[in-house]
Amino acid sequence: MKFYDCQTAPSPRRARIFIAEKGLNVDTIQVDLATNEQLSPAFRAINPRCTVPVLVLDDGTTLTENQGIAAYLEAAFPEPPLLGRTPQERGLVANWNARCELEGLWAVAECFRNRSKGLANRAITGPQDFAQIPALAERGRARAEEFLLTLDTRLRESRYLAGDFFSMADITAICVVDFAGWIKLSVPEDYLGLQRWRAALRERPSLAL
Amino acid sequence: MKFYDCQTAPSPRRARIFIAEKGLNVDTIQVDLATNEQLSPAFRAINPRCTVPVLVLDDGTTLTENQGIAAYLEAAFPEPPLLGRTPQERGLVANWNARCELEGLWAVAECFRNRSKGLANRAITGPQDFAQIPALAERGRARAEEFLLTLDTRLRESRYLAGDFFSMADITAICVVDFAGWIKLSVPEDYLGLQRWRAALRERPSLAL
Repeated sequence: MKFYDCQTAPSPRRARIFIAEKGLNVDTIQVDLATNEQLSPAFRAINPRCTVPVLVLDDGTTLTENQGIAAYLEAAFPEPPLLGRTPQERGLVANWNARCELEGLWAVAECFRNRSKGLANRAITGPQDFAQIPALAERGRARAEEFLLTLDTRLRESRYLAGDFFSMADITAICVVDFAGWIKLSVPEDYLGLQRWRAALRERPSLAL
Repeated sequence: MKFYDCQTAPSPRRARIFIAEKGLNVDTIQVDLATNEQLSPAFRAINPRCTVPVLVLDDGTTLTENQGIAAYLEAAFPEPPLLGRTPQERGLVANWNARCELEGLWAVAECFRNRSKGLANRAITGPQDFAQIPALAERGRARAEEFLLTLDTRLRESRYLAGDFFSMADITAICVVDFAGWIKLSVPEDYLGLQRWRAALRERPSLAL
Protein backbone atom coordinates (compact mmCIF):
# COMPACT_ATOMS: atom_id res chain seq x y z
CA MET A 1 0.00 0.00 0.00
CA LYS A 2 0.98 3.61 -0.53
CA PHE A 3 -0.43 6.46 1.52
CA TYR A 4 -0.41 10.00 0.13
CA ASP A 5 -0.48 12.35 3.07
CA CYS A 6 0.08 16.00 3.96
CA GLN A 7 1.43 16.36 7.45
CA THR A 8 -0.17 19.78 8.01
CA ALA A 9 -3.72 19.21 6.73
CA PRO A 10 -6.77 18.01 8.69
CA SER A 11 -8.30 15.56 6.18
CA PRO A 12 -5.26 13.31 5.66
CA ARG A 13 -4.69 13.46 9.42
CA ARG A 14 -7.88 11.44 9.85
CA ALA A 15 -6.48 8.62 7.70
CA ARG A 16 -3.04 8.92 9.33
CA ILE A 17 -4.53 8.41 12.79
CA PHE A 18 -6.72 5.53 11.55
CA ILE A 19 -3.67 3.77 10.09
CA ALA A 20 -1.68 4.30 13.31
CA GLU A 21 -4.54 3.01 15.48
CA LYS A 22 -4.56 -0.16 13.35
CA GLY A 23 -0.84 -0.55 14.09
CA LEU A 24 0.01 -0.55 10.38
CA ASN A 25 3.20 0.60 8.78
CA VAL A 26 2.38 2.02 5.37
CA ASP A 27 4.70 3.62 2.81
CA THR A 28 3.88 7.29 3.12
CA ILE A 29 4.46 10.04 0.56
CA GLN A 30 4.06 13.68 1.58
CA VAL A 31 2.16 15.90 -0.86
CA ASP A 32 2.99 19.57 -0.39
CA LEU A 33 -0.35 21.40 -0.42
CA ALA A 34 1.47 24.69 0.37
CA THR A 35 3.00 24.66 -3.12
CA ASN A 36 -0.13 23.18 -4.77
CA GLU A 37 1.61 19.90 -5.49
CA GLN A 38 -1.85 18.30 -5.45
CA LEU A 39 -2.63 20.15 -8.69
CA SER A 40 0.51 18.92 -10.48
CA PRO A 41 0.21 16.55 -13.45
CA ALA A 42 2.13 13.90 -11.49
CA PHE A 43 -0.36 13.92 -8.62
CA ARG A 44 -3.39 14.25 -10.90
CA ALA A 45 -2.33 10.94 -12.41
CA ILE A 46 -2.71 9.39 -8.95
CA ASN A 47 -5.88 11.25 -7.93
CA PRO A 48 -7.66 13.41 -10.52
CA ARG A 49 -9.65 14.88 -7.61
CA CYS A 50 -6.42 16.58 -6.48
CA THR A 51 -7.02 15.85 -2.79
CA VAL A 52 -5.33 13.97 0.02
CA PRO A 53 -5.56 11.50 1.68
CA VAL A 54 -5.14 8.83 -0.98
CA LEU A 55 -4.53 5.16 -0.28
CA VAL A 56 -3.34 3.07 -3.23
CA LEU A 57 -3.71 -0.66 -2.61
CA ASP A 58 -1.28 -3.26 -3.93
CA ASP A 59 -3.76 -4.24 -6.67
CA GLY A 60 -3.91 -0.60 -7.82
CA THR A 61 -7.30 0.18 -6.25
CA THR A 62 -7.23 3.87 -5.35
CA LEU A 63 -9.22 5.23 -2.41
CA THR A 64 -9.50 9.00 -2.21
CA GLU A 65 -11.95 9.58 0.64
CA ASN A 66 -11.52 8.99 4.34
CA GLN A 67 -14.63 6.84 4.40
CA GLY A 68 -13.34 4.61 1.63
CA ILE A 69 -9.95 4.26 3.28
CA ALA A 70 -11.51 3.44 6.66
CA ALA A 71 -13.96 0.90 5.23
CA TYR A 72 -11.14 -0.91 3.42
CA LEU A 73 -8.75 -0.93 6.37
CA GLU A 74 -11.42 -2.06 8.83
CA ALA A 75 -12.33 -5.03 6.62
CA ALA A 76 -8.73 -5.94 5.78
CA PHE A 77 -7.35 -5.41 9.32
CA PRO A 78 -10.27 -5.92 11.71
CA GLU A 79 -8.30 -5.50 14.95
CA PRO A 80 -8.62 -3.28 16.80
CA PRO A 81 -12.10 -2.39 15.52
CA LEU A 82 -12.57 1.31 14.80
CA LEU A 83 -16.01 1.13 13.15
CA GLY A 84 -17.80 -0.76 15.94
CA ARG A 85 -18.33 -4.45 16.73
CA THR A 86 -22.09 -5.00 16.97
CA PRO A 87 -24.67 -3.75 14.46
CA GLN A 88 -25.74 -1.06 16.96
CA GLU A 89 -22.14 0.06 17.44
CA ARG A 90 -21.54 0.12 13.71
CA GLY A 91 -24.64 2.24 13.24
CA LEU A 92 -23.65 4.69 15.95
CA VAL A 93 -20.05 5.05 14.75
CA ALA A 94 -21.16 5.76 11.19
CA ASN A 95 -23.91 8.09 12.44
CA TRP A 96 -21.55 10.17 14.60
CA ASN A 97 -18.86 10.14 11.97
CA ALA A 98 -21.31 11.50 9.40
CA ARG A 99 -22.44 14.21 11.82
CA CYS A 100 -18.82 15.18 12.57
CA GLU A 101 -18.25 15.63 8.84
CA LEU A 102 -21.48 17.43 8.00
CA GLU A 103 -21.89 19.63 11.03
CA GLY A 104 -18.24 19.96 11.98
CA LEU A 105 -15.63 19.38 9.29
CA TRP A 106 -17.46 21.00 6.39
CA ALA A 107 -18.45 23.94 8.61
CA VAL A 108 -14.88 24.68 9.73
CA ALA A 109 -13.59 24.16 6.18
CA GLU A 110 -16.28 26.50 4.84
CA CYS A 111 -15.12 29.20 7.21
CA PHE A 112 -11.41 28.65 6.68
CA ARG A 113 -11.45 28.32 2.90
CA ASN A 114 -13.73 31.29 2.32
CA ARG A 115 -11.69 33.78 4.28
CA SER A 116 -8.01 32.79 3.91
CA LYS A 117 -6.14 35.14 1.59
CA GLY A 118 -3.94 32.28 0.43
CA LEU A 119 -7.01 30.37 -0.78
CA ALA A 120 -8.54 32.99 -3.08
CA ASN A 121 -10.38 31.02 -5.81
CA ARG A 122 -9.77 27.81 -3.87
CA ALA A 123 -12.95 27.84 -1.81
CA ILE A 124 -13.47 24.14 -2.53
CA THR A 125 -10.79 21.46 -2.76
CA GLY A 126 -10.48 19.72 -6.10
CA PRO A 127 -9.32 20.42 -9.63
CA GLN A 128 -11.69 23.33 -10.29
CA ASP A 129 -11.33 26.86 -8.97
CA PHE A 130 -14.26 28.38 -7.09
CA ALA A 131 -14.36 31.97 -5.83
CA GLN A 132 -14.61 32.60 -2.12
CA ILE A 133 -18.04 33.60 -0.75
CA PRO A 134 -17.49 35.79 2.34
CA ALA A 135 -20.97 35.03 3.75
CA LEU A 136 -19.94 31.37 3.93
CA ALA A 137 -17.03 32.20 6.22
CA GLU A 138 -19.43 33.68 8.75
CA ARG A 139 -21.96 30.91 8.39
CA GLY A 140 -19.31 28.23 8.71
CA ARG A 141 -18.04 29.73 11.93
CA ALA A 142 -21.54 29.88 13.43
CA ARG A 143 -22.15 26.25 12.51
CA ALA A 144 -18.77 25.18 13.89
CA GLU A 145 -19.57 26.85 17.22
CA GLU A 146 -22.86 25.00 17.33
CA PHE A 147 -21.02 21.76 16.60
CA LEU A 148 -18.71 22.19 19.59
CA LEU A 149 -21.79 22.46 21.78
CA THR A 150 -23.22 19.31 20.18
CA LEU A 151 -19.99 17.46 20.96
CA ASP A 152 -19.93 18.70 24.54
CA THR A 153 -23.56 17.72 25.13
CA ARG A 154 -22.88 14.22 23.85
CA LEU A 155 -19.59 13.81 25.71
CA ARG A 156 -21.16 14.75 29.03
CA GLU A 157 -23.24 11.59 28.80
CA SER A 158 -20.96 9.26 26.83
CA ARG A 159 -17.28 8.37 27.31
CA TYR A 160 -16.59 8.48 23.57
CA LEU A 161 -18.82 9.71 20.77
CA ALA A 162 -20.37 6.39 19.76
CA GLY A 163 -20.40 4.84 23.26
CA ASP A 164 -17.82 3.58 25.74
CA PHE A 165 -15.27 2.70 23.05
CA PHE A 166 -12.87 4.78 20.90
CA SER A 167 -13.81 4.83 17.20
CA MET A 168 -13.44 6.58 13.86
CA ALA A 169 -16.05 9.08 15.03
CA ASP A 170 -13.63 10.27 17.72
CA ILE A 171 -10.86 10.53 15.14
CA THR A 172 -12.99 12.74 12.91
CA ALA A 173 -14.18 14.80 15.87
CA ILE A 174 -10.71 15.52 17.27
CA CYS A 175 -9.47 16.50 13.81
CA VAL A 176 -12.40 18.94 13.58
CA VAL A 177 -11.76 20.36 17.07
CA ASP A 178 -8.06 20.93 16.29
CA PHE A 179 -8.91 22.30 12.81
CA ALA A 180 -11.30 24.76 14.49
CA GLY A 181 -8.21 26.37 16.00
CA TRP A 182 -7.36 27.52 12.47
CA ILE A 183 -10.46 29.74 12.55
CA LYS A 184 -9.61 30.84 16.11
CA LEU A 185 -12.36 28.79 17.63
CA SER A 186 -11.30 27.14 20.87
CA VAL A 187 -13.20 24.87 23.22
CA PRO A 188 -14.79 26.92 26.03
CA GLU A 189 -13.39 25.98 29.45
CA ASP A 190 -16.82 25.10 30.78
CA TYR A 191 -17.41 22.52 28.04
CA LEU A 192 -16.49 19.88 30.60
CA GLY A 193 -17.55 16.87 28.54
CA LEU A 194 -15.53 17.94 25.56
CA GLN A 195 -12.54 18.94 27.73
CA ARG A 196 -12.52 15.57 29.55
CA TRP A 197 -12.67 13.63 26.26
CA ARG A 198 -9.98 15.77 24.68
CA ALA A 199 -7.64 15.26 27.63
CA ALA A 200 -8.19 11.48 27.42
CA LEU A 201 -7.46 11.45 23.69
CA ARG A 202 -4.16 13.29 24.22
CA GLU A 203 -2.78 10.09 25.74
CA ARG A 204 -3.14 8.17 22.47
CA PRO A 205 0.17 8.19 20.54
CA SER A 206 -1.72 8.23 17.21
CA LEU A 207 -3.15 11.65 18.04
CA ALA A 208 0.32 13.21 18.14
CA LEU A 209 0.61 12.35 14.43
CA MET B 1 -37.77 -0.71 14.32
CA LYS B 2 -39.48 2.49 13.29
CA PHE B 3 -38.58 4.40 10.16
CA TYR B 4 -39.36 8.11 9.90
CA ASP B 5 -39.64 8.95 6.23
CA CYS B 6 -40.86 11.67 3.89
CA GLN B 7 -42.11 10.21 0.64
CA THR B 8 -41.20 13.30 -1.41
CA ALA B 9 -37.66 14.05 -0.18
CA PRO B 10 -34.34 12.76 -1.56
CA SER B 11 -32.48 11.98 1.68
CA PRO B 12 -35.02 9.61 3.26
CA ARG B 13 -35.46 8.03 -0.17
CA ARG B 14 -31.92 6.68 0.16
CA ALA B 15 -32.81 4.85 3.38
CA ARG B 16 -36.17 3.74 1.95
CA ILE B 17 -34.45 2.11 -1.03
CA PHE B 18 -31.79 0.54 1.22
CA ILE B 19 -34.50 -1.01 3.44
CA ALA B 20 -36.39 -2.31 0.40
CA GLU B 21 -33.25 -3.82 -1.13
CA LYS B 22 -32.70 -5.70 2.13
CA GLY B 23 -36.23 -7.09 1.81
CA LEU B 24 -37.23 -5.67 5.19
CA ASN B 25 -40.67 -4.59 6.28
CA VAL B 26 -40.27 -1.71 8.71
CA ASP B 27 -42.99 0.33 10.44
CA THR B 28 -42.90 3.60 8.55
CA ILE B 29 -44.12 7.00 9.71
CA GLN B 30 -44.41 9.85 7.20
CA VAL B 31 -43.10 13.23 8.36
CA ASP B 32 -44.62 16.11 6.40
CA LEU B 33 -41.72 18.39 5.48
CA ALA B 34 -44.11 20.58 3.45
CA THR B 35 -45.77 21.75 6.68
CA ASN B 36 -42.48 21.78 8.66
CA GLU B 37 -43.57 18.86 10.80
CA GLN B 38 -39.85 18.12 11.28
CA LEU B 39 -39.62 21.29 13.39
CA SER B 40 -42.53 20.35 15.67
CA PRO B 41 -41.88 19.59 19.36
CA ALA B 42 -43.13 16.03 18.81
CA PHE B 43 -40.58 15.32 16.09
CA ARG B 44 -37.79 17.19 17.88
CA ALA B 45 -38.24 14.71 20.71
CA ILE B 46 -37.40 11.94 18.24
CA ASN B 47 -34.63 13.76 16.37
CA PRO B 48 -33.42 17.13 17.70
CA ARG B 49 -31.64 17.56 14.36
CA CYS B 50 -35.09 17.95 12.74
CA THR B 51 -34.18 15.84 9.72
CA VAL B 52 -35.34 12.64 8.06
CA PRO B 53 -34.54 9.80 7.62
CA VAL B 54 -34.54 8.51 11.18
CA LEU B 55 -34.38 4.84 12.15
CA VAL B 56 -35.26 4.03 15.76
CA LEU B 57 -34.13 0.55 16.80
CA ASP B 58 -36.06 -1.65 19.20
CA ASP B 59 -33.57 -0.84 21.98
CA GLY B 60 -34.19 2.88 21.45
CA THR B 61 -30.95 3.58 19.54
CA THR B 62 -31.72 6.42 17.15
CA LEU B 63 -29.91 6.75 13.83
CA THR B 64 -30.38 10.05 12.01
CA GLU B 65 -27.97 9.80 9.09
CA ASN B 66 -28.10 7.61 6.01
CA GLN B 67 -24.62 6.32 6.75
CA GLY B 68 -25.58 5.28 10.27
CA ILE B 69 -28.75 3.59 9.07
CA ALA B 70 -26.91 1.74 6.31
CA ALA B 71 -24.07 0.60 8.58
CA TYR B 72 -26.54 -0.78 11.12
CA LEU B 73 -28.76 -2.54 8.58
CA GLU B 74 -25.81 -4.07 6.72
CA ALA B 75 -24.41 -5.55 9.95
CA ALA B 76 -27.80 -6.71 11.26
CA PHE B 77 -29.10 -8.02 7.92
CA PRO B 78 -26.04 -8.92 5.83
CA GLU B 79 -27.90 -10.34 2.83
CA PRO B 80 -27.94 -9.11 0.16
CA PRO B 81 -24.78 -7.09 0.79
CA LEU B 82 -25.07 -3.43 -0.17
CA LEU B 83 -21.75 -2.19 1.25
CA GLY B 84 -19.49 -4.69 -0.56
CA ARG B 85 -18.21 -8.18 0.31
CA THR B 86 -14.41 -8.03 0.16
CA PRO B 87 -12.24 -5.33 1.76
CA GLN B 88 -11.61 -3.82 -1.70
CA GLU B 89 -15.33 -3.76 -2.45
CA ARG B 90 -16.11 -2.23 0.92
CA GLY B 91 -13.53 0.46 0.30
CA LEU B 92 -14.85 1.26 -3.16
CA VAL B 93 -18.50 1.37 -2.07
CA ALA B 94 -17.71 3.75 0.80
CA ASN B 95 -15.44 5.82 -1.46
CA TRP B 96 -18.05 6.24 -4.21
CA ASN B 97 -20.80 6.81 -1.69
CA ALA B 98 -18.80 9.61 -0.07
CA ARG B 99 -18.11 11.17 -3.48
CA CYS B 100 -21.81 10.98 -4.40
CA GLU B 101 -22.63 12.87 -1.21
CA LEU B 102 -19.86 15.46 -1.37
CA GLU B 103 -19.76 16.18 -5.08
CA GLY B 104 -23.38 15.33 -5.89
CA LEU B 105 -25.93 15.46 -3.11
CA TRP B 106 -24.58 18.49 -1.26
CA ALA B 107 -24.10 20.33 -4.57
CA VAL B 108 -27.69 19.80 -5.73
CA ALA B 109 -29.01 20.60 -2.25
CA GLU B 110 -26.90 23.76 -2.18
CA CYS B 111 -28.46 24.92 -5.42
CA PHE B 112 -32.01 23.92 -4.53
CA ARG B 113 -32.08 25.24 -0.98
CA ASN B 114 -30.45 28.57 -1.83
CA ARG B 115 -32.85 29.53 -4.58
CA SER B 116 -36.27 28.09 -3.65
CA LYS B 117 -38.67 30.77 -2.49
CA GLY B 118 -40.30 28.32 -0.12
CA LEU B 119 -36.97 27.76 1.65
CA ALA B 120 -36.10 31.37 2.53
CA ASN B 121 -34.04 31.16 5.76
CA ARG B 122 -33.93 27.37 5.41
CA ALA B 123 -30.71 27.16 3.40
CA ILE B 124 -29.50 24.30 5.61
CA THR B 125 -31.61 21.51 7.09
CA GLY B 126 -31.71 21.36 10.87
CA PRO B 127 -33.16 23.24 13.81
CA GLN B 128 -31.44 26.57 13.04
CA ASP B 129 -32.44 29.05 10.35
CA PHE B 130 -29.79 30.16 7.87
CA ALA B 131 -30.34 32.80 5.19
CA GLN B 132 -30.06 31.81 1.55
CA ILE B 133 -26.83 32.78 -0.25
CA PRO B 134 -27.67 33.28 -3.96
CA ALA B 135 -24.05 32.68 -5.07
CA LEU B 136 -24.31 29.18 -3.63
CA ALA B 137 -27.23 28.36 -5.91
CA GLU B 138 -25.06 29.05 -8.94
CA ARG B 139 -22.05 27.26 -7.53
CA GLY B 140 -24.10 24.23 -6.55
CA ARG B 141 -25.50 23.93 -10.05
CA ALA B 142 -22.03 24.11 -11.62
CA ARG B 143 -20.76 21.42 -9.27
CA ALA B 144 -23.78 19.21 -9.89
CA GLU B 145 -23.18 19.43 -13.65
CA GLU B 146 -19.59 18.39 -13.10
CA PHE B 147 -20.77 15.48 -10.96
CA LEU B 148 -23.01 14.12 -13.74
CA LEU B 149 -19.94 14.04 -15.97
CA THR B 150 -17.99 12.23 -13.24
CA LEU B 151 -20.75 9.63 -13.01
CA ASP B 152 -20.88 9.18 -16.76
CA THR B 153 -17.12 8.78 -17.03
CA ARG B 154 -17.13 6.09 -14.36
CA LEU B 155 -20.20 4.29 -15.71
CA ARG B 156 -18.70 4.01 -19.18
CA GLU B 157 -16.05 1.72 -17.72
CA SER B 158 -17.90 0.06 -14.82
CA ARG B 159 -21.31 -1.65 -14.70
CA TYR B 160 -22.16 -0.08 -11.34
CA LEU B 161 -20.36 2.65 -9.45
CA ALA B 162 -18.23 0.47 -7.19
CA GLY B 163 -17.74 -2.38 -9.69
CA ASP B 164 -19.90 -5.08 -11.26
CA PHE B 165 -22.33 -5.20 -8.32
CA PHE B 166 -25.19 -2.94 -7.17
CA SER B 167 -24.47 -1.12 -3.90
CA MET B 168 -25.32 1.78 -1.63
CA ALA B 169 -23.20 4.01 -3.87
CA ASP B 170 -25.69 3.42 -6.70
CA ILE B 171 -28.58 4.20 -4.35
CA THR B 172 -27.02 7.53 -3.40
CA ALA B 173 -26.14 8.31 -7.01
CA ILE B 174 -29.62 7.65 -8.42
CA CYS B 175 -31.16 9.76 -5.66
CA VAL B 176 -28.80 12.59 -6.64
CA VAL B 177 -29.56 12.21 -10.37
CA ASP B 178 -33.32 12.32 -9.75
CA PHE B 179 -32.92 15.19 -7.24
CA ALA B 180 -30.99 17.11 -9.91
CA GLY B 181 -34.26 17.28 -11.83
CA TRP B 182 -35.50 19.64 -9.10
CA ILE B 183 -32.90 22.17 -10.26
CA LYS B 184 -33.79 21.44 -13.90
CA LEU B 185 -30.62 19.52 -14.53
CA SER B 186 -31.17 16.47 -16.69
CA VAL B 187 -28.76 13.83 -17.91
CA PRO B 188 -27.49 14.75 -21.40
CA GLU B 189 -28.51 12.19 -24.04
CA ASP B 190 -24.93 11.50 -25.01
CA TYR B 191 -23.97 10.53 -21.45
CA LEU B 192 -24.23 6.94 -22.58
CA GLY B 193 -22.67 5.35 -19.50
CA LEU B 194 -25.01 7.17 -17.15
CA GLN B 195 -28.03 6.55 -19.41
CA ARG B 196 -27.29 2.80 -19.61
CA TRP B 197 -26.91 2.51 -15.82
CA ARG B 198 -30.04 4.55 -15.18
CA ALA B 199 -32.10 2.38 -17.51
CA ALA B 200 -30.82 -0.75 -15.75
CA LEU B 201 -31.72 0.66 -12.31
CA ARG B 202 -35.28 1.41 -13.44
CA GLU B 203 -35.92 -2.34 -13.37
CA ARG B 204 -35.34 -2.57 -9.61
CA PRO B 205 -38.67 -2.37 -7.73
CA SER B 206 -36.97 -0.52 -4.83
CA LEU B 207 -36.22 2.43 -7.10
CA ALA B 208 -39.92 3.06 -7.70
CA LEU B 209 -40.19 3.84 -3.98
